[in-house]
Amino acid sequence: MESGDGEVVSNKQVIFKDYVPGVLKESDMYITTSTIKLKVPEDCTNGVLVKNLYLSCDPYMRNRMRKLQGSYIAPLNPGSPVSGRGVAKVLDSRHPDYKKGDFIWGMTGWEEYSLITATETLFKIHDKDVPLSYYIGILGMPGLTAYAGFYEICSPKKGEFVFISAASGAVGQLVGQFAKLLGCYVVGSAGSKDKVDLLKNKFGFDDAFNYKEEMDLDAALKRYFPDGIDIYFENVGGNMLDAVLLNMRLRGRISVCGMVSQYNLEQPEGVHNLMSLVPKRIRMEGFLVYDYFHLFPKYLDMVLPYIKQGKIVYVEDTAEGLENAPAALIGLFNGRNIGKQVVAVSRE
Amino acid sequence: MESGDGEVVSNKQVIFKDYVPGVLKESDMYITTSTIKLKVPEDCTNGVLVKNLYLSCDPYMRNRMRKLQGSYIAPLNPGSPVSGRGVAKVLDSRHPDYKKGDFIWGMTGWEEYSLITATETLFKIHDKDVPLSYYIGILGMPGLTAYAGFYEICSPKKGEFVFISAASGAVGQLVGQFAKLLGCYVVGSAGSKDKVDLLKNKFGFDDAFNYKEEMDLDAALKRYFPDGIDIYFENVGGNMLDAVLLNMRLRGRISVCGMVSQYNLEQPEGVHNLMSLVPKRIRMEGFLVYDYFHLFPKYLDMVLPYIKQGKIVYVEDTAEGLENAPAALIGLFNGRNIGKQVVAVSRE
Repeated sequence: MESGDGEVVSNKQVIFKDYVPGVLKESDMYITTSTIKLKVPEDCTNGVLVKNLYLSCDPYMRNRMRKLQGSYIAPLNPGSPVSGRGVAKVLDSRHPDYKKGDFIWGMTGWEEYSLITATETLFKIHDKDVPLSYYIGILGMPGLTAYAGFYEICSPKKGEFVFISAASGAVGQLVGQFAKLLGCYVVGSAGSKDKVDLLKNKFGFDDAFNYKEEMDLDAALKRYFPDGIDIYFENVGGNMLDAVLLNMRLRGRISVCGMVSQYNLEQPEGVHNLMSLVPKRIRMEGFLVYDYFHLFPKYLDMVLPYIKQGKIVYVEDTAEGLENAPAALIGLFNGRNIGKQVVAVSRE
Repeated sequence: MESGDGEVVSNKQVIFKDYVPGVLKESDMYITTSTIKLKVPEDCTNGVLVKNLYLSCDPYMRNRMRKLQGSYIAPLNPGSPVSGRGVAKVLDSRHPDYKKGDFIWGMTGWEEYSLITATETLFKIHDKDVPLSYYIGILGMPGLTAYAGFYEICSPKKGEFVFISAASGAVGQLVGQFAKLLGCYVVGSAGSKDKVDLLKNKFGFDDAFNYKEEMDLDAALKRYFPDGIDIYFENVGGNMLDAVLLNMRLRGRISVCGMVSQYNLEQPEGVHNLMSLVPKRIRMEGFLVYDYFHLFPKYLDMVLPYIKQGKIVYVEDTAEGLENAPAALIGLFNGRNIGKQVVAVSRE
């Protein structure tokens, strides 16, 4: 079945039904089974036929499931498998860079086997001394996102006060660890006691709090940052951003990575305290990881030794099987995941 | 009376009554007459006794009339004269840098004569070939605000698309002219037909519109910027900012100078479209002119020749007499002023 001899096999898939303006539900996707020939068609130059091992659940995927005006990324096709990043094994290839048996990561489909034609998104996996799933986490886009968003956008300095929302997530847990390694004071917010424990005990944050237990986020931030916040790594938006704006220090920086609390709302919440930007000379900057691919080698050189030395850890939340993929994706917006949400389709 | 011989004279004053949370009204100030001895008291080392000529009405002054949490500038003292920038003539001085007959600009009181003890805010006026009132406008803080906010915060390039709100105001009219001199495409918004005419015909903006006549600001901006906005010079906040966020181009910059539409509101309006910062990689940065005083000489070297050659013009709206000062200040928030709002206390 993995021989790439052209055998036709059944292919379980997660299909995206149609665009959803408000709250995304599991029923907006469904499981089906089709068939696939495990061979790249002859007319498909550069195509790669892969067996998917691990799939990534990321908040940005929500925005491909609505009709967004002028989005940076194309919406998904209703009726087709969900598309996202994954780790896969090459079964057959007409691409000169990839051969049978290689492991790759990049854009693939939510299905057992995928014929990938947009091969420009693929990376070959060279270092297999780490869990393969890391290539959709710490060694993939979430990792580079944390690195670029923290070092490039925030211009952090030792001793600064750093606050991270959604801090136990795929990106946040890394930003916090990078900031600690640099010598910053780091506090994170998350949505459960377990996550708060993880932040304090596993990732080494100086402190952490459960935002759901705080009636007054402004007061909570004043408690954790009596002298204010130099750097805010923004993952959630809405009320949290409003409270942070009241607690920033002079010349603070806000790196806007995402606003996950807003993605299931038809109309985003209003942010009222932007006038704080003026007297405090705050810089607030949005970024996309795509602009920082040139930093990937530098990032891997930094992070791989840290992983191997145990100086940086990475927590994943793994859903087993494609059947559980829709619930895993939905769970991101309810904060159900603890750590990076991964779907294990097959363990090889 | 201007001899500084210690004569005691009557001194008309505009007194600030008390902090106002919502809409500022004329009745929150009142006119009174006290007396003043036209001599710096002996125990007042470094004091300067001045006759006030021109007083500046600026939006930031509104925020000194409320109890703001941790503001960058101290609130006014209820029962004391309104404090603000002005141009004045020195009648008596114990300060080594200023002597009788000098003209100065800086922080003074809303009254005929002031004893200035916080002399670190004062600048001596050297070039008197221009209207003296310019030193609270194009040659003072509004001028440097426009210069720093445009050149330092926006990093403008020739050919870029520049949008300015409150564009006929003290700062906006200059930003637009600087942008035109650099070779940008410049559109401004203002609140009346007269102001729009001024923008197009006097200041040389490429286009301008009356925001009060636009039911849909997003649609208006799409009409004037079909290819989007590279640089937004933010003076107003609220709905306009929300519409601008939908129309920014990739890697756009928003220089946040102020949000005058919000200053009379007890609770600022919500801004809903901040998520646009992410896919468009927008940088939004607040600034205060105080950080750019070191650029003043460079700015004056640039702007004085432009003024004398007629390449930059400056429009002032002058209220005559202290009696009209409260209405002039209130008028800023209703858009009554056309150009920089000045109060002429005396013409020497």
